[in-house]
Amino acid sequence: MTEKRSQLCVGLDPRLGSIPPHLVEQYRAQAPEGCGCGRREVAACFEEFCAAIIEATAPHIAAVKIQLACFEAYGPAGMRAFKHTCDLAGEAGLIVIADAKRGDIGISAAAYSSAYIGMPEGLDGPIKGLNIDALTVNPLFGRDGLEPFIKDCKEYGKGLFVLVRTSNPGSAELQELPLAQNGLFYERLADLVAAWGKELIGGRGYSSVGAVVGATHPETVISLRKRLPEAILLVPGVGAQGATAAAAAGAFDQEGLGALITASRSIIYAGNGADYATLAAGAAERMKDELWSASH
Amino acid sequence: MTEKRSQLCVGLDPRLGSIPPHLVEQYRAQAPEGCGCGRREVAACFEEFCAAIIEATAPHIAAVKIQLACFEAYGPAGMRAFKHTCDLAGEAGLIVIADAKRGDIGISAAAYSSAYIGMPEGLDGPIKGLNIDALTVNPLFGRDGLEPFIKDCKEYGKGLFVLVRTSNPGSAELQELPLAQNGLFYERLADLVAAWGKELIGGRGYSSVGAVVGATHPETVISLRKRLPEAILLVPGVGAQGATAAAAAGAFDQEGLGALITASRSIIYAGNGADYATLAAGAAERMKDELWSASH
Repeated sequence: MTEKRSQLCVGLDPRLGSIPPHLVEQYRAQAPEGCGCGRREVAACFEEFCAAIIEATAPHIAAVKIQLACFEAYGPAGMRAFKHTCDLAGEAGLIVIADAKRGDIGISAAAYSSAYIGMPEGLDGPIKGLNIDALTVNPLFGRDGLEPFIKDCKEYGKGLFVLVRTSNPGSAELQELPLAQNGLFYERLADLVAAWGKELIGGRGYSSVGAVVGATHPETVISLRKRLPEAILLVPGVGAQGATAAAAAGAFDQEGLGALITASRSIIYAGNGADYATLAAGAAERMKDELWSASH
Repeated sequence: MTEKRSQLCVGLDPRLGSIPPHLVEQYRAQAPEGCGCGRREVAACFEEFCAAIIEATAPHIAAVKIQLACFEAYGPAGMRAFKHTCDLAGEAGLIVIADAKRGDIGISAAAYSSAYIGMPEGLDGPIKGLNIDALTVNPLFGRDGLEPFIKDCKEYGKGLFVLVRTSNPGSAELQELPLAQNGLFYERLADLVAAWGKELIGGRGYSSVGAVVGATHPETVISLRKRLPEAILLVPGVGAQGATAAAAAGAFDQEGLGALITASRSIIYAGNGADYATLAAGAAERMKDELWSASH
């Protein structure tokens, strides 16, 4: 972040209805005659789109957040494109965050963790894992649901971002429920995230257990920054979801660090013609500068 | 359920350390020399294991709950094995529940929904979906996070099981937090699930929006049965996790219906020799009878 003067994380959320039509046309032309399927072609199309965005925006961004749902919708071919996208982003020197929002218990939680930040068990010992630096996780199960993920973070030097306060309009319904003691549900959750992260404090006093906090709640961003001094915050909601760079800037510490601000649609769909990657790079550069100015 | 006199759902959670060693050996022998990988071989091994369990237990069970995490750990090959397992279970006449515990917002939630219970968008219109009847989902995002799933349930005649009270020991940490008004967090969540399900009431007065309630909390099973008269309950925790059939029986309505009781390890790992499938069938038959007796 300091090297690039960038606290920006680009969200890679490829969608057929939004990516440049000429790209879609190109892959439609390649689809086998009479094949009603097209999973492979869509996956290949997403892969090309993401590769172009990564290459163009890399100089301006610190990280990418790859939305697994968009790839998973296309089955095995989609999962292969997801892996390739992780590889490319890693090779471009970016922090790679898999936005999977996984959560489960026991052996299922361990299996998810092995899939993304650990190593799955093979027939002859552990299998090489994916090129992913951090994973978003859902904490509804409580501490024991997150334990397998925390264990893999320790073992493999990876990180988590635990959902604390999401950016969607309806998120208050459960997350802001007032508790009988000690504030709101998400505040209690934040305190648990702080406790869960204690054993993983590393450089600059930050833990490998971070928190997701939507920039669409600017006051909450500020209060959670104070409440979670050791958590790196992953802050979605800027751009298409309506939050401004200034609203997100409340997530930074006094040195302008400790948070990654993610923007997806406002950057990756900045253009939809032949120059889409160049326009994405421009949008990323502007957003990067806005964030740096708002925090320095 | 009535035809088979079975309220049992077998959980397919294949794991290398637990499936019969002779099966693992067989696939290890097939692995290409010097390939440190083995994702494909593990996936094929899981597929064979699940196929044998499905074939043997099908006469005694109403449904299978396929744990996506176990397959997802093996990437594209795992996802292909998952799809084949769904197909096989459907062909065996079973209700197929994908235990994915997905949850997200907006286009990401829509993408997850399309992946499992809807139809993903292809280059030439919608792509054929998977053979899945119902999906487990995580409600932390609130109503708008679940909307895309509910929409697909309506459109494609599918169902959801929303996590309300999970079976793990640490689940009370967040789920039983006392609220300032109206009881505990999971009770409030249950009320929301009831409200979300109102528009999808079908046969016998049950909604397509059901709830996951762990049998490891027997009193909660009884209280949630009353609180959610229109929700089909999916009840894990019987067997290896420690709950008894009697504890789970609190989930049934007066006709002994309205709930699927899931057991995984106690059935699928009943044996680990050449007769593993026969032993699994025996364990399923006994559990089926226990549940039917406890509720009739």
